[in-house]
Amino acid sequence: MKLLLEELHARGHSLTVIRGSTTWHIPEESPLYTSITIQMDEGMENFFEVYLQEQMKALREGASFLTSFKITKDFISMIFKAHSMCSEALIQMLDDESLVKRLRDAQYDLVLTDPAVPPGVLLAKYLKLPLVLHVRWIPSGDGQFAIAPSPLSYIPVPGSGLTDKMNFMQRIKNLLIYGIILFQHKFLVWPIYDVACNKYIEGECDIISMLQEADIWLFRSDFVFDFPRPTMPNVIYIGGFQCKPAQPLPADLEQFVQSAGEHGVIIMTLGTMVEALPKEAADEIASVFAKMPQKVIWRHKGERPSTLGNNTLIVDWMPQRDLLGHPQTKVFVAHGGTNGVQEAIYHGVPVLGLPLFLDQFDNLVRLKERGAAKTIELGDLNGQSFEQGLQEVLLQDSYRQNMQRLSSLHRDQPIAPMDHAIFWVEYVIRHKGAAHLRTEAYKMPWYSYYSLDVLLVLLTAAAALLLFTVAVFWFLCCRGRRKTKAKAE
Amino acid sequence: MKLLLEELHARGHSLTVIRGSTTWHIPEESPLYTSITIQMDEGMENFFEVYLQEQMKALREGASFLTSFKITKDFISMIFKAHSMCSEALIQMLDDESLVKRLRDAQYDLVLTDPAVPPGVLLAKYLKLPLVLHVRWIPSGDGQFAIAPSPLSYIPVPGSGLTDKMNFMQRIKNLLIYGIILFQHKFLVWPIYDVACNKYIEGECDIISMLQEADIWLFRSDFVFDFPRPTMPNVIYIGGFQCKPAQPLPADLEQFVQSAGEHGVIIMTLGTMVEALPKEAADEIASVFAKMPQKVIWRHKGERPSTLGNNTLIVDWMPQRDLLGHPQTKVFVAHGGTNGVQEAIYHGVPVLGLPLFLDQFDNLVRLKERGAAKTIELGDLNGQSFEQGLQEVLLQDSYRQNMQRLSSLHRDQPIAPMDHAIFWVEYVIRHKGAAHLRTEAYKMPWYSYYSLDVLLVLLTAAAALLLFTVAVFWFLCCRGRRKTKAKAE
Repeated sequence: MKLLLEELHARGHSLTVIRGSTTWHIPEESPLYTSITIQMDEGMENFFEVYLQEQMKALREGASFLTSFKITKDFISMIFKAHSMCSEALIQMLDDESLVKRLRDAQYDLVLTDPAVPPGVLLAKYLKLPLVLHVRWIPSGDGQFAIAPSPLSYIPVPGSGLTDKMNFMQRIKNLLIYGIILFQHKFLVWPIYDVACNKYIEGECDIISMLQEADIWLFRSDFVFDFPRPTMPNVIYIGGFQCKPAQPLPADLEQFVQSAGEHGVIIMTLGTMVEALPKEAADEIASVFAKMPQKVIWRHKGERPSTLGNNTLIVDWMPQRDLLGHPQTKVFVAHGGTNGVQEAIYHGVPVLGLPLFLDQFDNLVRLKERGAAKTIELGDLNGQSFEQGLQEVLLQDSYRQNMQRLSSLHRDQPIAPMDHAIFWVEYVIRHKGAAHLRTEAYKMPWYSYYSLDVLLVLLTAAAALLLFTVAVFWFLCCRGRRKTKAKAE
Repeated sequence: MKLLLEELHARGHSLTVIRGSTTWHIPEESPLYTSITIQMDEGMENFFEVYLQEQMKALREGASFLTSFKITKDFISMIFKAHSMCSEALIQMLDDESLVKRLRDAQYDLVLTDPAVPPGVLLAKYLKLPLVLHVRWIPSGDGQFAIAPSPLSYIPVPGSGLTDKMNFMQRIKNLLIYGIILFQHKFLVWPIYDVACNKYIEGECDIISMLQEADIWLFRSDFVFDFPRPTMPNVIYIGGFQCKPAQPLPADLEQFVQSAGEHGVIIMTLGTMVEALPKEAADEIASVFAKMPQKVIWRHKGERPSTLGNNTLIVDWMPQRDLLGHPQTKVFVAHGGTNGVQEAIYHGVPVLGLPLFLDQFDNLVRLKERGAAKTIELGDLNGQSFEQGLQEVLLQDSYRQNMQRLSSLHRDQPIAPMDHAIFWVEYVIRHKGAAHLRTEAYKMPWYSYYSLDVLLVLLTAAAALLLFTVAVFWFLCCRGRRKTKAKAE
């Protein structure tokens, strides 16, 4: 989102960012935008770390059903807590009359928001502004009523870890997960916003309807990465919009990378949500790295592993894009966040994936399906499996070839994804929305949408016709027989 | 299609065109391409003229059911005849071994064809070449299994004359027409190609599957013109690709146009399929034109109407694009062919539509729905209705405003439609197809596609569970009661 703001700013738009006080990746002060900061509760900082620690321990040690259940329950509670905080922040904001007046007076052109948390969507509705969504996954689990018909027979639900080719059991799984997600959203997550809704939104207030009213959906994916699926004309795929050609590395890093010689370099990062893997796992990984002829650059903020080899450079932060674009880089060991995966595609570097949570499994399964990545699940992660996976991605040329084919397809677009994104944002500004690209069909009752009422009437008519015909024949036949009988008598 | 060939030629591609001997709009000799001409039977030249004459007479004089039925039957027979001719031409072509050898040896990059008649699709399959479709309507009546899920509740079937907002009766009509078209194609039209199929295509030969294998669909429409609908990622909308800015008119025509002064000019054409309207209707229209303060340019190749006014210029051919782009042009009286309608949108000229047959009703209904056109159906066409319609489009400013809004939306695209078309043709050449943009889901059996098998199993399981629970309760309850009874005794 920040990159989009930079680009919009560069093209002369003036921006106002509404941010939570605990958001660190969108700072309060910036030359790019004016910011409005909403006070948020602290207390969720180390959540992912703690979850990972517990989850990994549970998986390794074969935890009881009760423990597993507790871990999952905690994870879901955390998501609910995040939504409650967002809802409270929204109410706090709309309660502030001077702030609301300032927002109204500013006469913004549009609201740009990620609907993973809905306050931005509610705000757009409240301020009656055009809405542009910046989205990775569709909040209700898939697009059925939000962006296009989405047959569950070939469109895997996010979180399912499934592909577009499912066997019968997988299709059952997909349908069940869809049901669970839909239930969660409809009855657990969205009701959290009911207070804000009832207080500030006129008429019916239903988050899925508000999503359907969005003018443009900027989707952070594309069909080189994602499985083909139907979409409505207001859905614009901008996957890889954040990717840029690599810049030269800092001198010391370049020297380290070049020192690897023909063996090349392995880079590893697990993103910004966790600082490091649990100690035991980190030690095992470090000892595998120590055995490799490659040089390794590893973003790891935890305790320094005791088994670290001389070939491994531990860093707090790495210039990921520039390293991925470096010809020496052979493998990217990653958690499978959308950003990292798309940069890997852009630069054509095969991936060894260690998915931790959220959409990381789903991102990696897309690369795996195309033969461009290998993944090791948390429960299977140990020195042996890690070494085997790393060797496979390094030595089997198909991983690199497949990834480079994806890269060449991804780069071959009529318009760069970032330009595409900006074009449609500005389009909404120019035309004050894009209602003509949006179907209103979702507002039909579901039985009409699926033509069930029409089918019912037609089938009833057909049945009535059939009955009538039978009745007529029966009548004619009986009369005929009676007459024959009468004659015979 | 010819314009696309010109553009491909201009970009250095070498083209081979396979044409029927009776095709006049793609000449045999051209600097743009090498042509292969297949002998076709003559005898369908004046078909549309004769049909129009009969149909109009029937509508005006209130023909008997039998006559109307005969006219419709003749029209459908003509379509079957055209398909038979195409099928024979294809067989004749594939029977010619030297021609087939020549086609194979040429190692073409792809086949570009309009699937309204399927021989091109069959040829691509036979030669195992990537397939790019250039298409206005989807051959099976709508896109259900060819391009994307197409709920019949809001996607009007071509030929229905319906919009995306249908009431209950209209939805019944849409479903019934869909059924008829599907039946026609599946059981009447496509079987015409069975001989060619069985003789030349290995394995299963089914035209809808072949369409599903297309790499790219270049759709001659867009969502300024058409109603929003879901599409798969390999469907590229290139509506208006043929439109270009107006060039200056020939001097004499420019003088005529300028002589109209502030009143401006009306232009009228009914396309190239019919030369002229029946005499009676032409006379009535001419006398309406004679009364108008505007000047009129009328493409009319029939007998000169006796009631022609001095303000009306009859021409054999007109520079339609340059006239539509001329600021003096106030109204476009047209039959509603795709090309004319899209040029009218591009240049922002409101339309008075006289739809004759085929997709002309559907094209015009899209403009009408947006308040940019008025239509008069053949049965209602007379001097009075024509005058009234013409005055309405001329005097009500909303027609012009709505058309100019469509024009500004249509022109506001990130990439010009022609460049978009060429990009995707060349994309298929560069990557030898575009299989990754295509879903294979349509190959599932229909009950799997719609998840009916999964639902059946889940419902059965739920029912079994329910029954089991009831049985257990019943058992416990009975035993309980029996025990109580026993105790009591």
